[in-house]
Amino acid sequence: MEKSSIPEVVVARLPVYIQKLNQLVREGREIVSSQEMAEHLGVSSAQIRKDLSFFGGFGKQGTGYNVINLLESLRSILNLNQIWEVVLVGVGHLGQALLSYQGFSRNGFEIVMAFDNDPKIVGKTFAGIKVIDVNEMQNHICPRGVPIAILTVPAANAQEMADQLIRCGVKAILNYAPVTLKVPEGIRLANIDPVLSLQTITFYL
Amino acid sequence: MEKSSIPEVVVARLPVYIQKLNQLVREGREIVSSQEMAEHLGVSSAQIRKDLSFFGGFGKQGTGYNVINLLESLRSILNLNQIWEVVLVGVGHLGQALLSYQGFSRNGFEIVMAFDNDPKIVGKTFAGIKVIDVNEMQNHICPRGVPIAILTVPAANAQEMADQLIRCGVKAILNYAPVTLKVPEGIRLANIDPVLSLQTITFYL
Repeated sequence: MEKSSIPEVVVARLPVYIQKLNQLVREGREIVSSQEMAEHLGVSSAQIRKDLSFFGGFGKQGTGYNVINLLESLRSILNLNQIWEVVLVGVGHLGQALLSYQGFSRNGFEIVMAFDNDPKIVGKTFAGIKVIDVNEMQNHICPRGVPIAILTVPAANAQEMADQLIRCGVKAILNYAPVTLKVPEGIRLANIDPVLSLQTITFYL
Repeated sequence: MEKSSIPEVVVARLPVYIQKLNQLVREGREIVSSQEMAEHLGVSSAQIRKDLSFFGGFGKQGTGYNVINLLESLRSILNLNQIWEVVLVGVGHLGQALLSYQGFSRNGFEIVMAFDNDPKIVGKTFAGIKVIDVNEMQNHICPRGVPIAILTVPAANAQEMADQLIRCGVKAILNYAPVTLKVPEGIRLANIDPVLSLQTITFYL
């Protein structure tokens, strides 16, 4: 099946299933039903079965899924059986927090370079990464061919930094700046903005 | 229309429209078409019109939307015309970054208390907020009736902290811990996990 024919909301749920399966592995579980998978995930068991059906059959009616097999299959579908190199641009409070977050490397995402424009930050080392002047970005990223960037710069600088990163060959950006970035066709963009999440919550309060 | 009859994915897109409308206000724009709204948002103009139709009519065919009116309507629908008090639990690197992030108060979310269990952190002040011992949480949150909590504790502590917060009357949790939390019916939960976002991206790379 063509990747583009799979709804993005389906793809976005697969990492959630992986997180749940990882928890089941830690609990020593071997088999799980779609009903149990669905618990506390905010999706129905029918939705889970439908999501997985996009990628072929993973279980027989009534027997449940083999936890390890399903986990490995989903990891393979999402190309997670490799190390992904990542650059981080913007080493303020949030950038520093992300540099010291061990969840990235534990899940195969290795931050290999970090950039900032603040002379008080450039040259400092955070979690083993020495911050490079953002004006040197092209010299460092272009030759290495880093596929993913995390953008933690102020809103006003985000578009310019995104443009530079894309010129340097970056194919995907995880954007923390609270702006709508314009990126060319073929570049993947994901946004993390806690304010947007809170604003969704308040609808229900 | 009943709130529960509006799909959550629709509600989750409204803050994105608000962000875009705020940008248009800053640019001095008065009218916007659904086509222009849709640009760079990753949704179609038809989807935007359909989303808005859940909440009544906001524009006439062919004339576009009045930017200010639509912005005010969406803010009102999401209950954003008030200050929302928020507590933050877990003042590690990420918690400290969030305490100093001005985007919350700028958008009506006021972090009024912060808690941690680390004796080296308790008593310290970050961005004007003095960190309180997490064992004192109930005494501080319960009487005040804070509706929203941001959870930035390690995965292993997240469920216990969520349970305590809910016992203290918290109605919604923005969870940064990389685990699936179990919360009772009626409690709103939103998760922010950059690893999940990256794992969605890698499907397409």
